[in-house]
Amino acid sequence: MHRSIIIGSGACIPENIICNSDFLSHEFHSQNSAPEENTPARIIKKFAKITGILERRYAPEELSASHLAAKAAAKAISDSGIDKESLDQVIVAHNFGDMKKGVSSPDLVPSLASRVKRQLGISNPSCVPYDLVFGCPGWLQGMIHADAFFKAGMAKTALIIGAETLSRVLDPHDRDSMIFSDGAGAIVLSYEEVNDQTTGLLSASVRSDCGEETDYIYMGNSLGAKKATHTQYLKMKGRKVYEYALRHVPVAMKDCLDKAGHPIEHLKAIFIHQANEKMDEAIVKSFYGLYGIDEPPATIMPMCIQWLGNSSVATIPTLFDLVRKSLLPGFELKKGDLVLFASVGAGMNINAVCYGYH
Amino acid sequence: MHRSIIIGSGACIPENIICNSDFLSHEFHSQNSAPEENTPARIIKKFAKITGILERRYAPEELSASHLAAKAAAKAISDSGIDKESLDQVIVAHNFGDMKKGVSSPDLVPSLASRVKRQLGISNPSCVPYDLVFGCPGWLQGMIHADAFFKAGMAKTALIIGAETLSRVLDPHDRDSMIFSDGAGAIVLSYEEVNDQTTGLLSASVRSDCGEETDYIYMGNSLGAKKATHTQYLKMKGRKVYEYALRHVPVAMKDCLDKAGHPIEHLKAIFIHQANEKMDEAIVKSFYGLYGIDEPPATIMPMCIQWLGNSSVATIPTLFDLVRKSLLPGFELKKGDLVLFASVGAGMNINAVCYGYH
Repeated sequence: MHRSIIIGSGACIPENIICNSDFLSHEFHSQNSAPEENTPARIIKKFAKITGILERRYAPEELSASHLAAKAAAKAISDSGIDKESLDQVIVAHNFGDMKKGVSSPDLVPSLASRVKRQLGISNPSCVPYDLVFGCPGWLQGMIHADAFFKAGMAKTALIIGAETLSRVLDPHDRDSMIFSDGAGAIVLSYEEVNDQTTGLLSASVRSDCGEETDYIYMGNSLGAKKATHTQYLKMKGRKVYEYALRHVPVAMKDCLDKAGHPIEHLKAIFIHQANEKMDEAIVKSFYGLYGIDEPPATIMPMCIQWLGNSSVATIPTLFDLVRKSLLPGFELKKGDLVLFASVGAGMNINAVCYGYH
Repeated sequence: MHRSIIIGSGACIPENIICNSDFLSHEFHSQNSAPEENTPARIIKKFAKITGILERRYAPEELSASHLAAKAAAKAISDSGIDKESLDQVIVAHNFGDMKKGVSSPDLVPSLASRVKRQLGISNPSCVPYDLVFGCPGWLQGMIHADAFFKAGMAKTALIIGAETLSRVLDPHDRDSMIFSDGAGAIVLSYEEVNDQTTGLLSASVRSDCGEETDYIYMGNSLGAKKATHTQYLKMKGRKVYEYALRHVPVAMKDCLDKAGHPIEHLKAIFIHQANEKMDEAIVKSFYGLYGIDEPPATIMPMCIQWLGNSSVATIPTLFDLVRKSLLPGFELKKGDLVLFASVGAGMNINAVCYGYH
């Protein structure tokens, strides 16, 4: 029996640290565009309490998403020990293409995956690079895509990267701009023979709601603008996203774990999209509630949102890489540990993957 | 035995016809940005001779790529006769997101596939919408993706759409801007039981070269601009693209046909990406040359580039829909006809699919 196994991981965490205090000079506006009555200091304090975010990272001006992607990918390939020329696919999940200083047009031509393949120096013409756009869950969806190609006998090894420079689509007048961050994370996934029921990618669940949910995360005008402008920014109906996620993510996680055929007691870690600390905690609490358990185990959910913010598609592979390399105190992964990945984002899309750590 | 079968098709051909004479007032510049010495009339005459393009279509201002995509998709679903709620996947291939009047920022949040799912009114949360970015071959790659999910047992029915509004990324000072066009094409692909070796998706070949080839099709400044500008345009090293395509596309087509196990004499039609008439003719001639045949059959290659231009990911599904519905005089498809799809574009990427018409 063959299963998809993560044989390498890597992350690119930009060095520029932006603290909450760096937003003290911002003139925040409310959703109806009127200036906020609260001072930035009070807004920031409340923000930190809800989201858990104290710092985030911004990429240096000269690096775009595909550069961050290539840096994370190079580490993942090195970690895996494989020859880069043996990769069958390079999958890059993102939602904005390469955003460059002084350029406002979309830049996805050629695809970011082609650019990454070039930066990695992969010359094998059979290595197929493509970009996947699926909101924040895009990176995890890339794992599901690679797994499909493996099961179909159409590929054996894939590099799956999530990369984003959200700092370049932020509205300085929007409190939500404090949430977002830049970064990239990557894994090498390989289809390998296994002899047990607890190794590799065991199950996946995907859910997509595209009614009014399509408008929950979108591109819109600056709250500080009096009229529509050429430049648009990442916008979020925070309350709607929270309610949607809390309603559907726990059920998708349970569906995924149940498909894998393991009891919840076997679960050792949940790698959840680092969207908002309070929301993530509420999701995991509700997930355990579906099994009649009031309180999740204290160390079930590693988090890095406090110092890395929400880098969209990059949060899960970055977090996973930190834990895998024992860089997140208090969290360790051992062979045979059952873990659950879960994400939610623009679309609205939700996915979950149950995985036996190798 | 199961194979992927095209059970429905549809296209959205915008009504606005732009004739070559509409470019007579353009001030064309050469690749080094100096004004062209030739008059627009002479440039246009030469252009038409090489590319075969006499007209192209531009979408009306109020419609973006996802709107064109949804229109083509609705026709394909209607043509297939299936219940739209039975679709497992909605795949949208594009390279620029939704380009709207007065907005210069990338707009892929949420994905175009989510927007299409919404416009089609599909409420099934198990229907997974995602965007695929793979240059012009993106739509054909979507077929290969759906086929992988089918073979893996992870999906049974997929809507595969190619949609683009290239008119919104054109540099008016660039002769190449006359090549490009707007449009969308779609198919419904279904995994069905077949009893012979000549029905459905028989084989696929993909090639990707990401060395200096990554720079052959890219986003760049206007030839009329003295310095770098915020807005960038689709740019092409035409000679490089031509040489690359002629060198590698015929070989990929042969690889694909040979994998399918059919002799070239069985081939009834070649649906090639409508990039440039002379280039497409040279590719097909070279492809037949690989089998020792000097001249391809006169009616092997339906073309619509003369009146529809090059709409990137939309050309093949649009052309296929025209032939399938007997709207292209001189070309007919019958059950059992062996056909070959082939494309080449930014990346550089090449793909080919051998298909037994059903």
